[in-house]
Amino acid sequence: MKTVTSIKDLKLALEKNPHAQIGFVPTMGDLHQGHLSLVKTAKSQSDFVVVSVFVNPTQFNNPQDLENYKINLDSDKELLKKNQVDLLFAPTPDVMYPEGFSTYVEENAFTQNLCGASRPGHFKGVTTIVAKLFNLIKPQKAFFGLKDYQQFLTIKKMATDLNFDVEIIPVPIVREEDGLALSSRNKRLSDHDRFRALSIYKSLLLAEQTFKKGERNLAAIKELVRQTIDDAISDTDAFIDYIEFVDADHLGAPIPNSRFLIAVAVQFSNCRLIDNRVIEP
Amino acid sequence: MKTVTSIKDLKLALEKNPHAQIGFVPTMGDLHQGHLSLVKTAKSQSDFVVVSVFVNPTQFNNPQDLENYKINLDSDKELLKKNQVDLLFAPTPDVMYPEGFSTYVEENAFTQNLCGASRPGHFKGVTTIVAKLFNLIKPQKAFFGLKDYQQFLTIKKMATDLNFDVEIIPVPIVREEDGLALSSRNKRLSDHDRFRALSIYKSLLLAEQTFKKGERNLAAIKELVRQTIDDAISDTDAFIDYIEFVDADHLGAPIPNSRFLIAVAVQFSNCRLIDNRVIEP
Repeated sequence: MKTVTSIKDLKLALEKNPHAQIGFVPTMGDLHQGHLSLVKTAKSQSDFVVVSVFVNPTQFNNPQDLENYKINLDSDKELLKKNQVDLLFAPTPDVMYPEGFSTYVEENAFTQNLCGASRPGHFKGVTTIVAKLFNLIKPQKAFFGLKDYQQFLTIKKMATDLNFDVEIIPVPIVREEDGLALSSRNKRLSDHDRFRALSIYKSLLLAEQTFKKGERNLAAIKELVRQTIDDAISDTDAFIDYIEFVDADHLGAPIPNSRFLIAVAVQFSNCRLIDNRVIEP
Repeated sequence: MKTVTSIKDLKLALEKNPHAQIGFVPTMGDLHQGHLSLVKTAKSQSDFVVVSVFVNPTQFNNPQDLENYKINLDSDKELLKKNQVDLLFAPTPDVMYPEGFSTYVEENAFTQNLCGASRPGHFKGVTTIVAKLFNLIKPQKAFFGLKDYQQFLTIKKMATDLNFDVEIIPVPIVREEDGLALSSRNKRLSDHDRFRALSIYKSLLLAEQTFKKGERNLAAIKELVRQTIDDAISDTDAFIDYIEFVDADHLGAPIPNSRFLIAVAVQFSNCRLIDNRVIEP
């Protein structure tokens, strides 16, 4: 695996394989099995896999969250090498955002609710950096995890709207054995919070079971989700940021007899966790 | 010359010359010698010249201006064919902006004054459509006329910031024999206004001469420009939109001993004209 940190070296490395089908996995480092699942999927569908590791400052609306986002590039490199990644692009912020940077890409439909409402500016940072990386790496396919469901839909919409010649491939959520969705932020949880965070996935499964048993009153199911999480976190500082039931394709109001998404965000004392589940009718 | 109107046909036409160096000239049709100068420059620097003709609705802040912007695709085609253009892309608005379109590209530094101040949203429409066309056509070089000086700098900044792999080439202003800068909007001028519009270029030349004779008080030169135009248009409904002296590279305050731009916009009863001149120290 080659590692490059400058745009010049990235271009040189890519020019060596002019006809390769490139699969691209953008990450913010601090890699876990969720990222490696993206890499494995990319390996199975591409000739040449490029991973980026870049903690993108423009997508952090909360400076403390950015501050806490420490990565260890050496251990990330080891993991990527083991997983036969071809090229790692690990630029510094000044490479991606030189002084005077002033152009942004913004999607305005899929970014208004859920995390878009809780984290103003977050998705603008995401679409901007991904557009830049697409232009630099020119992948045929790019791989995004479904834990960040809204991000996946937003990137797909951006790629369609701006005519990027790249296929956006969704990859399923990877969970711990006990059900907690993998996230680089999980390790910030205290043991106490870590245990209580399991209520998020439990509440999603309970909602799914309840729907599958015939309950069609989504407000009642939502109340079940809320109760399940609230009961678990009542002895902590955590609070529910949102529990939303939305149409799984456009994130608007659920459409009867169509698949819908249950999306949950919970703020714990040291980190904010999100999770979701698509419910098929 | 091949003409295509759909994205599918555009891609097919481009795939036939996979290794050609593509030169791209985006236009809104209604072609004149200014556009043909862009085409000739593109021909001299590329293997394969693609011209787009698309009246981009998102860059018209004034609906009446869009309404007045009528093009004749047949005569445009004739002109482009005569000038040995290889491929014409002439989509309809629904091809470029299908229902639900929701992603925009916005440059925030070079678009705040001059036409950016007079035409809110204009440059956001420009950068969005140009980003889309770059992604579709993937040119190595793209050609922009310097009459739209602020547009040229904005596109160049967007291309740099978003890492588009395209060189933005400026092409000098083309003028009528009497000095009026060519514009598709000139034909909307009454004979009376057409004659008075010459004062714009005259005022720019006067400013340049005055500077070259040693005057360094830019406020005094600006006053000369204003007087020259005001005297000419005093018997019309026209009014000066702006006269600005700005640094020619960043459009900020002029920097002593650096080249600067004099930019002028005058609103006549049926159209708004712009012109500019770069003054070398």
